[in-house]
Amino acid sequence: MTEIPQVPDSEHPTQVLTEAECWQLLAGTPLGRLAVTCRNEPDIFPVNFWPHGSTVLLHGSRHVRSAVGQSSPHVVLEADGRDAGTVWSVMAKGTFRQVGRPEAQELVQQRQLRPWTFGPECIYLELRPDRVTGRRIAVGPEERY
Amino acid sequence: MTEIPQVPDSEHPTQVLTEAECWQLLAGTPLGRLAVTCRNEPDIFPVNFWPHGSTVLLHGSRHVRSAVGQSSPHVVLEADGRDAGTVWSVMAKGTFRQVGRPEAQELVQQRQLRPWTFGPECIYLELRPDRVTGRRIAVGPEERY
Repeated sequence: MTEIPQVPDSEHPTQVLTEAECWQLLAGTPLGRLAVTCRNEPDIFPVNFWPHGSTVLLHGSRHVRSAVGQSSPHVVLEADGRDAGTVWSVMAKGTFRQVGRPEAQELVQQRQLRPWTFGPECIYLELRPDRVTGRRIAVGPEERY
Repeated sequence: MTEIPQVPDSEHPTQVLTEAECWQLLAGTPLGRLAVTCRNEPDIFPVNFWPHGSTVLLHGSRHVRSAVGQSSPHVVLEADGRDAGTVWSVMAKGTFRQVGRPEAQELVQQRQLRPWTFGPECIYLELRPDRVTGRRIAVGPEERY
C-alpha cells in the first residue's frame, strides 16, 4: 500500500486529499469558480458556494444564469487556497439543478447566507457532485512573489 | 453613453474592466485556473501563468498535460483576487498550443519564471486569447467571513 504523506514537501510535492478533507476545505471557502460547457467550449464564472449535506449550493450572477441555460448538464466547481508553504485545490464534478426563488429565499434565511452579489438577476444552483477530488502541493520559497 | 463607475459601490455593484485593466491584473497574479472541455464536459486545473505580449504562458501539472491532450481547442484562463471591499475576476478565452521543452527552458531562463510545481511531467502552454474580459464587484461588510 502506498503511503500518502501527510504534508507535502520537496520529496513528496503533491498530496492527494481525501474526500473528507476536500469537503472540509470547501466548507471554509466562500469563493469558487464554476466551469460549464456551452457548444463544446468551456466557460468559468466566480460563484459563492456553501456545502449542504452531500450537495453544494451555488450563487452566481446573471452571467451564470445565462451560461447554465445553454450548458451541458455536467459542471465543475473548483476552489483553491493557500496555507503556509502549500497550495490546495478541490474540484467537485457533477450535475446541477436551478433552485427556485421560494426555495432559495428559505435557504438564505434559514442558513443566513451572505452571497457577495445580489439582485433579481442572480441565480442559485444545487450541484450534486458525483466526484470530489483535491490535491495539496508544496510551494517553495522561490515562487514569483 | 452609459457612464461606467470607476469603483463599484452599493449603487453600482459591478464594474466592467477595460482590457488594459484585465491585462494589468493578470500580470500581478501568479495562480489562475484553466478550464478545458473534454467530451463535452468541463474540467478545471490550477495553473501558474505569465502574460507575454498578447499571449499568456501557462504552466500546469501532469493533470493539465493529460487533459489538454483530449481537449477541444478552446480554453479559458480565469484569475481573480480581492482588494479592499471589492473582488475582481478576469477571463481570457482563446486557443492554445503546447510549448516544446527547449522553447520552454529558454523562456524559463530568460524570464526567470518560478512555477510552483516542477518535473518532467509538467507542461507549458501558450494561450492566444481572442477575448479578455473582466469585472470587479463590490463586496459588502456582510460577507460570510
